Amino acid sequence: MIDWQVEAERLDAGDPLSKQRGDFLLDDAVAYLDGNSLGALPKATPGRIDQVVRGEWGDGLISSWNTASWIDLPQRIGAKIAPLVGAQPREVVVADSVSVNLFKLISAALSIQEGRRVVLSEPGNFPTDLYMIEGLEGQGLAERRLADRDAVEDALDDKVALLLLTHVHYKSGEMFDMKRLTKAAHEAGALVLWDLSHSVGAVPVDLNGSDADFAVGCGYKYLNGGPGAPGFAFVAQRHHDRLQQPLSGWMGHKSPFAFSDDYEPAPGVDQLLCGTPPILSMSALEVGVDLMAGIGIDALVAKSRKLSEFTRAAMTALVPELPCISPVDPEARGSQLSFRHKHAYELCQALIARKVIGDFRAPDILRLGFAPAYVRYADCWHAVSELRKILDSGEWQKTEYAQRGKVT
Amino acid sequence: MIDWQVEAERLDAGDPLSKQRGDFLLDDAVAYLDGNSLGALPKATPGRIDQVVRGEWGDGLISSWNTASWIDLPQRIGAKIAPLVGAQPREVVVADSVSVNLFKLISAALSIQEGRRVVLSEPGNFPTDLYMIEGLEGQGLAERRLADRDAVEDALDDKVALLLLTHVHYKSGEMFDMKRLTKAAHEAGALVLWDLSHSVGAVPVDLNGSDADFAVGCGYKYLNGGPGAPGFAFVAQRHHDRLQQPLSGWMGHKSPFAFSDDYEPAPGVDQLLCGTPPILSMSALEVGVDLMAGIGIDALVAKSRKLSEFTRAAMTALVPELPCISPVDPEARGSQLSFRHKHAYELCQALIARKVIGDFRAPDILRLGFAPAYVRYADCWHAVSELRKILDSGEWQKTEYAQRGKVT
Repeated sequence: MIDWQVEAERLDAGDPLSKQRGDFLLDDAVAYLDGNSLGALPKATPGRIDQVVRGEWGDGLISSWNTASWIDLPQRIGAKIAPLVGAQPREVVVADSVSVNLFKLISAALSIQEGRRVVLSEPGNFPTDLYMIEGLEGQGLAERRLADRDAVEDALDDKVALLLLTHVHYKSGEMFDMKRLTKAAHEAGALVLWDLSHSVGAVPVDLNGSDADFAVGCGYKYLNGGPGAPGFAFVAQRHHDRLQQPLSGWMGHKSPFAFSDDYEPAPGVDQLLCGTPPILSMSALEVGVDLMAGIGIDALVAKSRKLSEFTRAAMTALVPELPCISPVDPEARGSQLSFRHKHAYELCQALIARKVIGDFRAPDILRLGFAPAYVRYADCWHAVSELRKILDSGEWQKTEYAQRGKVT
Repeated sequence: MIDWQVEAERLDAGDPLSKQRGDFLLDDAVAYLDGNSLGALPKATPGRIDQVVRGEWGDGLISSWNTASWIDLPQRIGAKIAPLVGAQPREVVVADSVSVNLFKLISAALSIQEGRRVVLSEPGNFPTDLYMIEGLEGQGLAERRLADRDAVEDALDDKVALLLLTHVHYKSGEMFDMKRLTKAAHEAGALVLWDLSHSVGAVPVDLNGSDADFAVGCGYKYLNGGPGAPGFAFVAQRHHDRLQQPLSGWMGHKSPFAFSDDYEPAPGVDQLLCGTPPILSMSALEVGVDLMAGIGIDALVAKSRKLSEFTRAAMTALVPELPCISPVDPEARGSQLSFRHKHAYELCQALIARKVIGDFRAPDILRLGFAPAYVRYADCWHAVSELRKILDSGEWQKTEYAQRGKVT
């Protein structure tokens, strides 16, 4: 019989990324398995933000748009994200939120695809992806079509303008085969927009190798950019010349400071800038991205898989009453595992009380995320063993664990 | 003959807001007359941000969405802005940027105004306002019409769905009569959207007293929310039930954490939330708003007028070669004065070298802003006297002052 605790110690001892946890301000006693919802705080962030606030804003005042290069942040951070997702530096820009970027890029796809107006996605996709299609539907510009993930390819007919999928499913962790789906969409004359929110920084993504058209992604999960960090957007170089989208704000103008009455888009992805970017939040994102880029995506992916494999095996052996609904093959899933239990909410609360932080997704999913930069095998072991204790003792039935908060 | 320096000293000595400058981290030697572009740093901000970063994000992690009430920030800050603009607390919400909020509210107006599609504005309005109309025009949903400000009322015909004006003009400082224009628009069957970016926190604004329909405003000017702080949006209570706009992100859903496939808008202005808000930038904005709300809008307005009147009089007497293009009546202008000179750019640069920070607006405007919370009469005197010296000595002709940067 395997001694899982000893196994966890052995894996931590041999972990090439074991030192990286020291790059984060994270209580040693906490097993933080929710970095797929909000990444942890990099040690360098508070100092950098204080410098931006006191030095760049307080002392530099308005001149910091030039002297501190605030004006270049969207492109500069975009270029650093690019290698994490298989893109060229000038194909990625940081702006607004994932939701707003979805609106821009669905619109861009529809304006390229004259005569087609169906946007195809799957039911149960992350809600904002589906809602932003509905936004364009309400404008009379799109038609939303949903097909279950195994029926997506069959639903690609000559009315489909765009296939919009989230690469790694937020709830189940299932990962689409980006290359295959993109090819299928292109063969049907559709473009593809990938939502990388649950992918970037944790799983292999090769946008250009997959011939992807568009992508968006989140800054506050595996990129550790801080709560509500701005999102990013990718547009393949081949579409830059015909890129057109309706959120034509002044920062996306060719010459914003000419203050002309008529909009002329900036070239390429620069057009995706809309209003003035939130510099404090952008600056925190840059620290997180620098950290992930410094570690390198290959090392992150390798550890992510080992963490989730260890956890899945230990859960199967020790907590069999919570079936894992995530794919068994680590190459077919994201950096998370989801387990089903009727009382998943209460179990999650009881785990949090024992400093094991995962999250609950309605109605019955306990979700554990493995941010490879700072999660230890010991954390995974801690989660499994505490869950066993919680189930055995029945302590999850305590009244206080049944009070559902607004955000879970 | 008036001794302007003595007069400035007298006014500073009698200024009821003279202590407020101490609430900002601002070099004593700097005359900062660009708070209408980027407000100064409140003394309380660095500490608050450090607390948000280390305490709420670093220690609280994901739970801070509830325990630190991140989830309530958009409404909480909105309710604090409301009294500054004559609105009810539940009519204002903080979200995204001014540009993105313009898109939402222009869209909302068009969907109420079935059968009308013209959005009327003035040439020379702040560019992003005009560009966002163009965005909807590109979608085939709006038609942009521009009329000079004295011809706006005549241009209000039965095709006009929405009148979109910036209350205080960014370049000239001219202020529209909100009540009169709103009434004229309503009489023509049009709705009105006011851009308060250059108004909020410095001039009297009475949205409900003027029967306004919609408004947007900027967080990083007189509200001192920091570079790129999120914007706010106002929708009059009477429109809440029929509010509809296409940026239907998950944070604007009635129950975001039900993760349902179909969008159901949250009631009222909450629907205007789209993606996850940038918490660091939001938190800095809250500090700035608290400070302005604490001083109170009446005291801010009174000082704003006295500052600009002092400056206009001193400029007229001592620097007559720079004609003031802003209205003479302080009640007809915002908290700024704009002066015309062929070499305004070089003069602005020479002033900055002497620690008088104003800004340049193409092609020939030197703009001085009077943020009443921290600008001293001595700063205004400093601006006028340094400008006189720069003109007399001809030092503005130095080569380095002719190099135009990206952002001015």
